[in-house]
Amino acid sequence: MIEELQRLPGVGSKTAQRLALHILSRPEAEVQTLAQVLVEAKQQVGHCSVCFHLSADPVCDICRSLSRDPQVICVVADSRDVIALEKTREYRGQYHVLGGLVSPMDGIGPEQLHIQPLVRRVAQGTITEVILAINPSVEGETTTLYVGQLLKPFTKVTRIAFGLPMGGDLEYADEVTLARALEGRREL
Amino acid sequence: MIEELQRLPGVGSKTAQRLALHILSRPEAEVQTLAQVLVEAKQQVGHCSVCFHLSADPVCDICRSLSRDPQVICVVADSRDVIALEKTREYRGQYHVLGGLVSPMDGIGPEQLHIQPLVRRVAQGTITEVILAINPSVEGETTTLYVGQLLKPFTKVTRIAFGLPMGGDLEYADEVTLARALEGRREL
Repeated sequence: MIEELQRLPGVGSKTAQRLALHILSRPEAEVQTLAQVLVEAKQQVGHCSVCFHLSADPVCDICRSLSRDPQVICVVADSRDVIALEKTREYRGQYHVLGGLVSPMDGIGPEQLHIQPLVRRVAQGTITEVILAINPSVEGETTTLYVGQLLKPFTKVTRIAFGLPMGGDLEYADEVTLARALEGRREL
Repeated sequence: MIEELQRLPGVGSKTAQRLALHILSRPEAEVQTLAQVLVEAKQQVGHCSVCFHLSADPVCDICRSLSRDPQVICVVADSRDVIALEKTREYRGQYHVLGGLVSPMDGIGPEQLHIQPLVRRVAQGTITEVILAINPSVEGETTTLYVGQLLKPFTKVTRIAFGLPMGGDLEYADEVTLARALEGRREL
């Protein structure tokens, strides 16, 4: 059991041992429930066939929602990013989860990501804006430029702002962030 | 000596004692030099009469430089922010140091800051852009809006971008930063 638990992310040998001893100390019914929940979740949760966000249904809640703007798509690398953006309660459009970033160093090319389905969604012509919300890493920049080039013929393509984080301080910001904040300045 | 050293920022009783013992262990000539440097710097360094940045001359190096754009002014709260922005090597215009932020709670009104000299600089009509590079705090927002309103009749007023810092991760960004990053999105 300890060996299996150690395969979980962020679980080392000590934590695995603590988890194992805790599980052994619980009543059997509780352990049965835990085991069952893991298997059921794995069996039931797949990807939305439209946006590739995690979903127990063939089409996810966000894609089916009638109260969301169907003409705006926010493109993210990962389902975690959807969850982070939903927490802001600011965005009311659709999503598209790429399932990773273009990374030639790791052998991940565009064909391994959900880019073609995104192009098909946008090429239908009803989308007025695609927002690229991708981390500002090397792979993120590559992916943003690649996807941007593919979508520009069909619709307006924007990307999220990079600059000083809220509560940030000019004095403590790194130079690249400050340079981006200056470069991205907007009229008041 | 320990009591006097303790008045410095970030110096508590232990650090003050360590500094004091170190100073006592040095040759007298070295201590004389240190003491002299402190007094000389205090006597010589004042504020630039144009931009209010720290300067040993009546007009600072940046204001006198012929290689910098004289038509763009970047407005900051503090001389520390000038130093931070200069490190980026991206900005080639002028500065204006307000000397603080509007903060009614601390009794700091606009008249205590170098806002009137800024308005006079801009009202001369040769400035094409004023960039407000002020921290996104409550006082920072108040100051940005106040200064922006005063300068808008004379020139274009912009402010630096707020959003995801470089190397930042969507998943770990706070909600306000993410909301600002979305709101501030720009066309690719």
